[in-house]
Amino acid sequence: MKHLLLSAVAAASLILPAYGAEPAPIPSPGEIAAAAPASDWVAIAPSDLLVMDLAPDAKGNPRRVVIQLMPAPFSQGWIGNIRKLAAAHWWDGTSVNRVQDNYVAQWGDATEKKALPKGLAVVSERQYVSSGRGYSYISGRLAKESDKVTTAEDAAEQAIRAASMPKSDGKFTDNYAQFAGAVNGWVLAADTTGVWPVHCYGAVGVGRNMSPDTGSGAELYTVIGHAPRHLDRNIAVVGRVVSGIEHLSSLPRGTGALGFYEDAAERVAITSIRVATELPAADQPRFEYLSTESDSFARYADARQNRRDPFFITPAGGADICNIPVPVRPVAAK
Amino acid sequence: MKHLLLSAVAAASLILPAYGAEPAPIPSPGEIAAAAPASDWVAIAPSDLLVMDLAPDAKGNPRRVVIQLMPAPFSQGWIGNIRKLAAAHWWDGTSVNRVQDNYVAQWGDATEKKALPKGLAVVSERQYVSSGRGYSYISGRLAKESDKVTTAEDAAEQAIRAASMPKSDGKFTDNYAQFAGAVNGWVLAADTTGVWPVHCYGAVGVGRNMSPDTGSGAELYTVIGHAPRHLDRNIAVVGRVVSGIEHLSSLPRGTGALGFYEDAAERVAITSIRVATELPAADQPRFEYLSTESDSFARYADARQNRRDPFFITPAGGADICNIPVPVRPVAAK
Repeated sequence: MKHLLLSAVAAASLILPAYGAEPAPIPSPGEIAAAAPASDWVAIAPSDLLVMDLAPDAKGNPRRVVIQLMPAPFSQGWIGNIRKLAAAHWWDGTSVNRVQDNYVAQWGDATEKKALPKGLAVVSERQYVSSGRGYSYISGRLAKESDKVTTAEDAAEQAIRAASMPKSDGKFTDNYAQFAGAVNGWVLAADTTGVWPVHCYGAVGVGRNMSPDTGSGAELYTVIGHAPRHLDRNIAVVGRVVSGIEHLSSLPRGTGALGFYEDAAERVAITSIRVATELPAADQPRFEYLSTESDSFARYADARQNRRDPFFITPAGGADICNIPVPVRPVAAK
Repeated sequence: MKHLLLSAVAAASLILPAYGAEPAPIPSPGEIAAAAPASDWVAIAPSDLLVMDLAPDAKGNPRRVVIQLMPAPFSQGWIGNIRKLAAAHWWDGTSVNRVQDNYVAQWGDATEKKALPKGLAVVSERQYVSSGRGYSYISGRLAKESDKVTTAEDAAEQAIRAASMPKSDGKFTDNYAQFAGAVNGWVLAADTTGVWPVHCYGAVGVGRNMSPDTGSGAELYTVIGHAPRHLDRNIAVVGRVVSGIEHLSSLPRGTGALGFYEDAAERVAITSIRVATELPAADQPRFEYLSTESDSFARYADARQNRRDPFFITPAGGADICNIPVPVRPVAAK
């Protein structure tokens, strides 16, 4: 039998009582998500999916990366630029130019001379944080409808209450914000200044130079290591990879400064980047996420914090927000 | 100019005042570590380094991974087994068999039939946690000598004090323990049950089946994604990769369940694993770490929590313990 770190198979015999009816095995977080009713899954609009096709690998296998763009009110200035760049087919023929271990894979125009489409916005640093007005978020304990608040001011109040909770609950506080949780399918953080999206594994952000340059959106990266949360509120997060991140995370690391490829031949060619709605219907990827407002998500998040499935001996009693990834899966063919 | 996420070059012109003498640019955490005096660096004994040579890559480049084994009192039962396995050259001809994205790369005997050397210990789950007696650790704010405590009981007391600190300091608390910090070069967590090493990026642990099997040490893995801290106290951490992790983290992901390679041809051959002292002197790697008890480390940890170097606009005001990696570097040739 293979030695496993973590078995997806519940070893029911280990947790049966000596007498009586068989109890249900305790499900893992993944099993909880998989068992969620169809009504708990939310379809992602194809207009919010960015499809990046890399050149096939050395064996001729296709390499497709699918990115979900963030919803309003977050990062919309950059996302507007990204939609224009995709519509102009601007990334076709560009490349992945930087892969830094335990940090990011970054792509764009390696020459830095390719003219940008007209009409791109120059976005203010203030947009790293949204006022959050009209948006809603959930308390540190990732709870349900009844815990929702609707303004940044409410969020801050709730954060202050969370901070004075006893330690047994305080484990769900965040090292990088007064307040963190998942809402509308996204992980967010907040304090009295507002609400912002965070740099978890797979987050997609906008490369930039020194402030006040915030980047156009033409130079993008994704996180391929431990969440570099210190980048929150310093770089724009515009989406997350929902499929194919292994095509970026398993690329050879660049040996130049910051993980840039030193030899142009090492760069990985980008065949095309399109918003999914521009692809033929049969080629459009379809994904759905587990509603962060559902009971299923609440149980999933609780199980991520307190692993009781058979492999585990000592549940952690907590988790950091990047260790409670929102489940996303392909929509099954009908 | 390249769009960067994070520049290692201080752009002094951006932070100069209009008049007066030039202040020193504000250094990045890496610059603080690099500027630390030689006396703040601690040599790692070659007897604590495990050298894993993989078969050369497709271009014939060597692939060496160097692992530092944990010091006492942690995980010594498994580490004793690992030393015996290395001395028996047991891993020679085995392979990397599993690479799961954002999780682990795992190696050992794919056949699971290779006889183990005689005399390996069967280690108790209790050893996932050390009583910590005789060991010392630092408070959540990663401070200095004066903050040291010397028993698990003291650590728990200190944890309770930390938990009742106001939120401005409470950011340094841990989502997975009452208490976390860095000591003697290692990141540790603690509560009233004791002290344990943690699963940060690059941590090396012991694969196992269902409890009460704790694994022999023959099947090892390293973390290649966001820190899976829920594994703490459930699997033994025995060391960390100090060099060459890119040879594991950039491997193709396995397409089987849990990231196992489905085709034996996908496995990556291990040429040899040796404790460094068994290698010819000229071939022994030499590394040193920044003393976690030094002023340099305290300033480095503070800078990781509050980035003030020129790229940053909004310092986070905190960090999780896995985002304050202990700096390790090769010892420069003399």
